[in-house]
Amino acid sequence: MGKPIRFSIEKKMPGALGRAGTITTPHGEIRTPAFVTVGTKATVKALTPEMVRDLGAQVVLANTYHLYLEPGERIVRDAGGIHKFMNWSGPTMTDSGGFQAFSLGAAFGKGVSKIAKGGESENGSTAGDEGSQEEPRLARIDEDGVTFKSHLNGSEHKFTPERSIGIQHNIGADMIFAFDECTSPHAPHEYQEEALNRTHRWAQRSLDAHHANESAAGKQGLLGIVQGGRHKDLREESARVVGAMDFDGFGIGGSFDKEDMYTAVGWVNALLPEEKPRHLLGIGEPMDLFGGVENGCDIFDCVAPTRMARNGTIHTADGRINILNAQFVRDFTPLDPGCECYTCRTYTRAYLAHLFRAKEMLAGTLASIHNLHFIIKLVANIRQAILDDTFSEFKAAFLARYYKSL
Amino acid sequence: MGKPIRFSIEKKMPGALGRAGTITTPHGEIRTPAFVTVGTKATVKALTPEMVRDLGAQVVLANTYHLYLEPGERIVRDAGGIHKFMNWSGPTMTDSGGFQAFSLGAAFGKGVSKIAKGGESENGSTAGDEGSQEEPRLARIDEDGVTFKSHLNGSEHKFTPERSIGIQHNIGADMIFAFDECTSPHAPHEYQEEALNRTHRWAQRSLDAHHANESAAGKQGLLGIVQGGRHKDLREESARVVGAMDFDGFGIGGSFDKEDMYTAVGWVNALLPEEKPRHLLGIGEPMDLFGGVENGCDIFDCVAPTRMARNGTIHTADGRINILNAQFVRDFTPLDPGCECYTCRTYTRAYLAHLFRAKEMLAGTLASIHNLHFIIKLVANIRQAILDDTFSEFKAAFLARYYKSL
Repeated sequence: MGKPIRFSIEKKMPGALGRAGTITTPHGEIRTPAFVTVGTKATVKALTPEMVRDLGAQVVLANTYHLYLEPGERIVRDAGGIHKFMNWSGPTMTDSGGFQAFSLGAAFGKGVSKIAKGGESENGSTAGDEGSQEEPRLARIDEDGVTFKSHLNGSEHKFTPERSIGIQHNIGADMIFAFDECTSPHAPHEYQEEALNRTHRWAQRSLDAHHANESAAGKQGLLGIVQGGRHKDLREESARVVGAMDFDGFGIGGSFDKEDMYTAVGWVNALLPEEKPRHLLGIGEPMDLFGGVENGCDIFDCVAPTRMARNGTIHTADGRINILNAQFVRDFTPLDPGCECYTCRTYTRAYLAHLFRAKEMLAGTLASIHNLHFIIKLVANIRQAILDDTFSEFKAAFLARYYKSL
Repeated sequence: MGKPIRFSIEKKMPGALGRAGTITTPHGEIRTPAFVTVGTKATVKALTPEMVRDLGAQVVLANTYHLYLEPGERIVRDAGGIHKFMNWSGPTMTDSGGFQAFSLGAAFGKGVSKIAKGGESENGSTAGDEGSQEEPRLARIDEDGVTFKSHLNGSEHKFTPERSIGIQHNIGADMIFAFDECTSPHAPHEYQEEALNRTHRWAQRSLDAHHANESAAGKQGLLGIVQGGRHKDLREESARVVGAMDFDGFGIGGSFDKEDMYTAVGWVNALLPEEKPRHLLGIGEPMDLFGGVENGCDIFDCVAPTRMARNGTIHTADGRINILNAQFVRDFTPLDPGCECYTCRTYTRAYLAHLFRAKEMLAGTLASIHNLHFIIKLVANIRQAILDDTFSEFKAAFLARYYKSL
């Protein structure tokens, strides 16, 4: 049986790590670089799948942690899997659930989203998040996995690599992720190294669990996750170790300091096998998308475009606007005059301003369509620029205009 | 110049007042009987206009009171009118704003929606709503019109017949309504009579204001409103007086006791001119739609289908279900197995149950599509039954199944 996920490179950026390619999945192709739309709970917030398709999305990522808690992954399985459950026939991904188990699960009852750990972990470390000494220890890490409390009702749960993979098999996305520990960028080197070694053991356990289910392994690709925080030695070690394992692709995980993110991504992608796709988790700011692509990442996901949209913050070629500002109340031009999305073809800023002020549900829908289209189209244009050998010019022109007000 | 609104009757129900016909408007035809979708603030809540069209809606009614307060009717005018502003190219209606000025405007700050009036009205009447003595007198009626406070911010406003018509001209719907006073069904006969006479004077002033604007009168039809509460003499007087005026159609207003509604509607429609369309305001319960049609009403509007939908209450041929009930969590059948709407063709009860439990915006969208389609299709089926001479059988079979659990 062939691999469920294949990747081909069409063009490489001269003198950089970036490339344009195609990921082939059981539910269709993804032209890369590509932005992955987030559909946390098996729905892209405020949008039908037809809207998601029509705005240009190629692939949807759902969150294992959320689907595990509601409706429960067995309901997704019994519905025929994520594609059928949510009526999205294109490629899908799920994350491993680890990130949310640490952040949301650990934050239960405290309104914080930090990693709280320590006393009950097998190694007794109390290092970790800023100020963690004063936080409740709700997410506990041991060699086996992560014990956490549901942010919904406080009930206790445990994710292990085997459990995460089993849940992701039930959900049934085309690309799934190995279970990893997402550390704080502020954790000291000593703790990062310890966590990294555990993540590497979990990577192998994830692979073993995946291949133990032949049916799932035949139709779902497993991506390993490279961790290592801000540390070059750890990032490179992780790229070598995870890169040598039999994954169908790679995710570059969690925590960077913003300013050195591209550097750290470059360390990793210089070492990862070139012929497999690379996903940069949680990135959706225009500047970061350029930085991620030129440093060798192929796909990106982020909740920012839709979350911003629901708050009335709108991407335009000239930077962000807040549609609730008074100046837009009588502005009968589109959100972004050069945009070709449904919202911009059909409605005015004045109408969106009205919907947001009136707190109408359609506001979030129309703004989400626009912001997602904006980011997806941006990454598609980056892809085209790579194919046309015009990446540098395109990047310079886009960023100068988008950020000129900064 | 021809009348902007024309009505033709295709078939009358033998021995009853009901009929099937066609209303022709500047933005297309409405096959009647028909259910009018409510788009309060120039948006059908949670739906795009394309969804509204695809679920079978022929006509959308927006609320003058709400659009006057936000975004302001001059913004709708400057956007090119309601059709262009909200991207609905089919027939539209607006109400007069009177009902909300009395209910919402009067209720500002108190969380009630009753008619509070008295001391400052020119006739000194303190009759009216139940318990109104203890309520703040925020909506004041005099011969000129109604003074009320915005439910949004407490600012004071006045609607007169001339003002209501002027606002409705700016909004630009195909069918607009004369300004009327909507009394409580519990108001005594003496007050009802006084209010009714005022409503008749306002009807003439509405007509005069409408025809004073030739451009608007050439493309918008004006419907007069019949009032009179529960009283046969007043309802019949109102039908004769308003029916004799030069309106393009009629609305049957406001307040009935539920049990005698069909009777009162029959009194009115037996006297109204047969060749003009009749709108029954605020009716959307299946039993009431049958009652309204067989008593001679052609069109109906109500927020109930979408409001119920957003709360998870779903129409099915076997009555209503609440999708939040535990039994639907693993139910992989459609909301209503016989339904052909997008939601039922595409999603399961389990998926809707998940979306509602997770408080996802798509829940309200999908449920609204279904409930609106259900009611619109029901009225379309009633129309077909009239054409086929099978109204009685259709009514009996539908109601026996829909209400069998009661």
